[in-house]
Amino acid sequence: MNKHHLLLRSASFSTASLLNIRSGPPHPARPLFPSSGAGGTTTAAAVSHFFLPHQHHRQHHSLFPSPRLKPHRYPPLTPLSSTFKMSTTTPSPVDLIEQSKRLAAFQSVTAHLVPFPHYTRVGIGSGSTITFYPTGAQSEQLIESAGLNLQYINKLHPGALLDVCFDGADEVDPALNLIKGGGACLWQEKIVAASSRKFVCVADFRKISPALGTQWNKGIPIEVLPLAANRVLGELERMGSLGAKIRPGLPGKAGAIVTDNGMWIVDAPFKPLKVEGQSDREKGEWQVDELADALIKIPGVAEIGLFYGKNGRELQEGGAQKPVEAYFGMEDGSVKVLSA
Amino acid sequence: MNKHHLLLRSASFSTASLLNIRSGPPHPARPLFPSSGAGGTTTAAAVSHFFLPHQHHRQHHSLFPSPRLKPHRYPPLTPLSSTFKMSTTTPSPVDLIEQSKRLAAFQSVTAHLVPFPHYTRVGIGSGSTITFYPTGAQSEQLIESAGLNLQYINKLHPGALLDVCFDGADEVDPALNLIKGGGACLWQEKIVAASSRKFVCVADFRKISPALGTQWNKGIPIEVLPLAANRVLGELERMGSLGAKIRPGLPGKAGAIVTDNGMWIVDAPFKPLKVEGQSDREKGEWQVDELADALIKIPGVAEIGLFYGKNGRELQEGGAQKPVEAYFGMEDGSVKVLSA
Amino acid sequence: MNKHHLLLRSASFSTASLLNIRSGPPHPARPLFPSSGAGGTTTAAAVSHFFLPHQHHRQHHSLFPSPRLKPHRYPPLTPLSSTFKMSTTTPSPVDLIEQSKRLAAFQSVTAHLVPFPHYTRVGIGSGSTITFYPTGAQSEQLIESAGLNLQYINKLHPGALLDVCFDGADEVDPALNLIKGGGACLWQEKIVAASSRKFVCVADFRKISPALGTQWNKGIPIEVLPLAANRVLGELERMGSLGAKIRPGLPGKAGAIVTDNGMWIVDAPFKPLKVEGQSDREKGEWQVDELADALIKIPGVAEIGLFYGKNGRELQEGGAQKPVEAYFGMEDGSVKVLSA
Amino acid sequence: MNKHHLLLRSASFSTASLLNIRSGPPHPARPLFPSSGAGGTTTAAAVSHFFLPHQHHRQHHSLFPSPRLKPHRYPPLTPLSSTFKMSTTTPSPVDLIEQSKRLAAFQSVTAHLVPFPHYTRVGIGSGSTITFYPTGAQSEQLIESAGLNLQYINKLHPGALLDVCFDGADEVDPALNLIKGGGACLWQEKIVAASSRKFVCVADFRKISPALGTQWNKGIPIEVLPLAANRVLGELERMGSLGAKIRPGLPGKAGAIVTDNGMWIVDAPFKPLKVEGQSDREKGEWQVDELADALIKIPGVAEIGLFYGKNGRELQEGGAQKPVEAYFGMEDGSVKVLSA
Repeated sequence: MNKHHLLLRSASFSTASLLNIRSGPPHPARPLFPSSGAGGTTTAAAVSHFFLPHQHHRQHHSLFPSPRLKPHRYPPLTPLSSTFKMSTTTPSPVDLIEQSKRLAAFQSVTAHLVPFPHYTRVGIGSGSTITFYPTGAQSEQLIESAGLNLQYINKLHPGALLDVCFDGADEVDPALNLIKGGGACLWQEKIVAASSRKFVCVADFRKISPALGTQWNKGIPIEVLPLAANRVLGELERMGSLGAKIRPGLPGKAGAIVTDNGMWIVDAPFKPLKVEGQSDREKGEWQVDELADALIKIPGVAEIGLFYGKNGRELQEGGAQKPVEAYFGMEDGSVKVLSA
Repeated sequence: MNKHHLLLRSASFSTASLLNIRSGPPHPARPLFPSSGAGGTTTAAAVSHFFLPHQHHRQHHSLFPSPRLKPHRYPPLTPLSSTFKMSTTTPSPVDLIEQSKRLAAFQSVTAHLVPFPHYTRVGIGSGSTITFYPTGAQSEQLIESAGLNLQYINKLHPGALLDVCFDGADEVDPALNLIKGGGACLWQEKIVAASSRKFVCVADFRKISPALGTQWNKGIPIEVLPLAANRVLGELERMGSLGAKIRPGLPGKAGAIVTDNGMWIVDAPFKPLKVEGQSDREKGEWQVDELADALIKIPGVAEIGLFYGKNGRELQEGGAQKPVEAYFGMEDGSVKVLSA
Repeated sequence: MNKHHLLLRSASFSTASLLNIRSGPPHPARPLFPSSGAGGTTTAAAVSHFFLPHQHHRQHHSLFPSPRLKPHRYPPLTPLSSTFKMSTTTPSPVDLIEQSKRLAAFQSVTAHLVPFPHYTRVGIGSGSTITFYPTGAQSEQLIESAGLNLQYINKLHPGALLDVCFDGADEVDPALNLIKGGGACLWQEKIVAASSRKFVCVADFRKISPALGTQWNKGIPIEVLPLAANRVLGELERMGSLGAKIRPGLPGKAGAIVTDNGMWIVDAPFKPLKVEGQSDREKGEWQVDELADALIKIPGVAEIGLFYGKNGRELQEGGAQKPVEAYFGMEDGSVKVLSA
Repeated sequence: MNKHHLLLRSASFSTASLLNIRSGPPHPARPLFPSSGAGGTTTAAAVSHFFLPHQHHRQHHSLFPSPRLKPHRYPPLTPLSSTFKMSTTTPSPVDLIEQSKRLAAFQSVTAHLVPFPHYTRVGIGSGSTITFYPTGAQSEQLIESAGLNLQYINKLHPGALLDVCFDGADEVDPALNLIKGGGACLWQEKIVAASSRKFVCVADFRKISPALGTQWNKGIPIEVLPLAANRVLGELERMGSLGAKIRPGLPGKAGAIVTDNGMWIVDAPFKPLKVEGQSDREKGEWQVDELADALIKIPGVAEIGLFYGKNGRELQEGGAQKPVEAYFGMEDGSVKVLSA
């Protein structure tokens, strides 16, 4: 198969499907919402590329705009080198980001899914028997429209683990600590990550950060019980957060955003979080692990958008929040890989 | 006092307080969200004007701009004329709308609250004993920051009624049928309206409509149980709605908007709704009452954003959804009043 | 095979599987809750009998007693006679009720599923391709432990319909109006019923009633928004309900029962509801359709436990709440069938 | 006044009022649910005794038996002795428990509220200006029916603290670690406790325990996101919990109990929890603090029913979960006090 074939093929799936390995409450079968372009969604495209008979994409009911990709720009189906270049035409900034994520997604799937045909229920040479677990409505819709097998994380038997989980992030530090929750799905996403043997992060170059809080400066997303929101704001202020506030629901809803779990989101900015070395609490400085440990114990907090601690290679039995690797699509068309 | 003074004054207290007579789950004491400028909120300003000792506004924690009121500029407590003009300075379009609402709010309070000192728990000459019931987080915060007595609609004893309720609307037809729900609070708002002896609508000139669906063309907001969303979409299509869809939560949340009640919102456009005369179902035509009656009975629908049927004067015992009067601030500075 | 064999057999698989055609939020894969013995659950046993290769029951994680079925005791696949007797041994009252339901379930499946091999995705002679939609956690678990195909009602595409739905009832009148909601799942159950071409009711003899409110005297279950509970209680009292009250959550939960939809349940007793003839409102008398129409329109009411109006044969396009037939297991071992 | 009078009196007002210092979503004004006799509720009786003009009890809408108090039997307002005996008549076991709790409640209020007239907004000699924060529907109703000032915990400004909080417990160990959550309100209760300068526990003698898990053997109540319930069950099993299971909703609701926060409750039994010394994880042994720390970090867990760590005297700025003192009504009519 040559690139042209690949091109045609990959053209058909750009937003058609996904592997986001997410889970949440069941949602309608047709894609209802505009794509937010998260890493998990992009990765789905890569997955469906490798595992689907592409002429059979079920794209009924898709509200997503059809991608008009140009064939010759697509990567080949043979195992990819760890860095591959994009075409030299000058794309718009938006296209650039989108393409960079696609390349990162391709490469992460090539590394973490393609070489492991023994992954759960994977038939030889066919991905149609892999089951995909979405973390939210978007990835669920893409799984379905791509004709992939859909399952919910709540159906995993007690003690069972997913083999691998691909998801995006809002910011990634050098130790692979993450900030997630820009889309208010952090609780479900952490549950899915912690239910996986290994978590692979896929993002674009803007998410690379020397310290959490540098690139994503809206604050750490924290999911809280609404009646405790004020109390949590007080605790955060005492801990040194400047300007923590409840995320508003406008334009679609007056008042606070309500999550799929009936909670509110507090966005709590802190000074950039240290990975190691001394932190001066008097100056509002925190290390990632210390802050996460303090935040999760605040009564009223349901879950936090810091993904920290150990990764799936260190914790063999699941329960890890941090990725084992992060794939970033770069501006120059290359893919940068951070490994734990 | 001349008109100019009134103008200045009404501009100055825009977000200081409110009477929105709304209700909902309890929310933190400080205003958390930017004002959406709904009719109820604007009316609150007028209420606090008449009933509060203005130097004692409790504005602790307010995120809203502080009103710098000068006492001698206040309008008199005597009933205002039914039409009063604004200053002739040329305001921006946004200011124009804001001012028009304020005038409508003033006039509605003048007509429906000031003349009735016997309204529940109202002391002679003092509004401080009136209790205000918010319909959501915004109006709750304004009630508190204005130092008004706050109470929740769920604390009304069975069979008890509010004396009067002021609230806005997204569209108003000549028979005072309303579309509400642009802020996703329609369920709480209908409960409060139906718990009142009379409901007074306050809005700006853009909401006046010959037929519902003319001005507000995003569709009738319908609050649905998430697992029934697809089924309701199917029913709506069968009933002639074109392009009904689930309201998305972006930018704050991926997936659907979740209401304070854990539901989703479907926005269902229909052809402009007739108030009387023949309607041809084959052509997707509906009369307001017929459509509302059909929508509310769809299994999976929790509540609808059509406020219809009888008003509080016709139903003496509460339960009415339609206002007895609607006050519109007009572009030319006048206030137009529609009476049932 | 004689009747005695049938008896033994039907007793043996009581909780092995189900077809309850219900739906709700996803629930864990293993059966978590004791069986409440509803009609839908019992019917599931009958379904799995006809459609499953019994030696392949996937009963992993089942908390229910394992059925030790002996193949030669199975009833024949040919349509059963409309009345068949149980053994003459003297069962306990509980057994009697359980057995009567099983017989009714068998007969309903025989009449409404077995003869229709063209029902959605039903392969010839094999039920393994039928997809089953649960209305709650219980039926979901039974579907899974029986190895039946599980799907959620929210995944039905807009406009699509289930072919048939089997479910129980708390009371059934001669016109096949129902009271449902004793298990607080009425909203989901009505959505599934209304999403089906025909709804078949399965119950035991205690549910047969000359008029709703005669046998089930705890009141009509009404699902309400918590903040409107007081208001709804007031409306119900005005409508003639005596002693309507909020259902408590004890022993497992202090305060009110919370439904899977975040609502409360009000149980509202009324005088037995007339099917036809005059009703004197002054005396608190109501006809079923009139009462249901009034209840569903009360602001604050999400859904009501009256299943009324037209049935699936009358409404060809779905949306019906009433069953087309009701099957009652009788005390004497016979099955009584009520047809619309 | 002698002890006998005290006895009669304390018996007579059992459900008249409360101080439970709880908070939660707003609930209707009339008592809707039978009393579960928790420690907070009982304490309320003691509070209303000291602070209310008893002839003015507002008991409108009360479903609780009316207290027929005889004024001359009231105990004096002077501080009571730290141990007082009950009458020598022989009560039933239920009465005994109820009376023992009342005595404990009296004594705790005597020690922690009566001597502190400067507590928030407390007028000299009058408790009518104290504001009470309920933790759930029951205590809210009692606050209202007693005519006490009601407020919700979510209205506390960020950083503000309650002066004192009284609440019950399901089990208390010698270090004042608690198990709470038998009534499924643990999340709200922990938020209120952590929002208080000091938390005072009130219970009967059955709750005294050498090690958590000895007396209360149903398991530690854990509030979980429903879609993570299976995953949490798996983690708990790995941590050594034997037979953790989801709490069922019967008889009022099929399926799982749903909390006021939309979550489920998992009851997780562990071996009795050590307060100090070595614990052997291989044998499933845990110390309280270690277990609590591990449980709260499990993704999918919203809050846990272990109240542990430091108390309000140790943490001057709020955030404490453990009580500073626990008052137990004993079988012999005495009150036992455990101090931190």
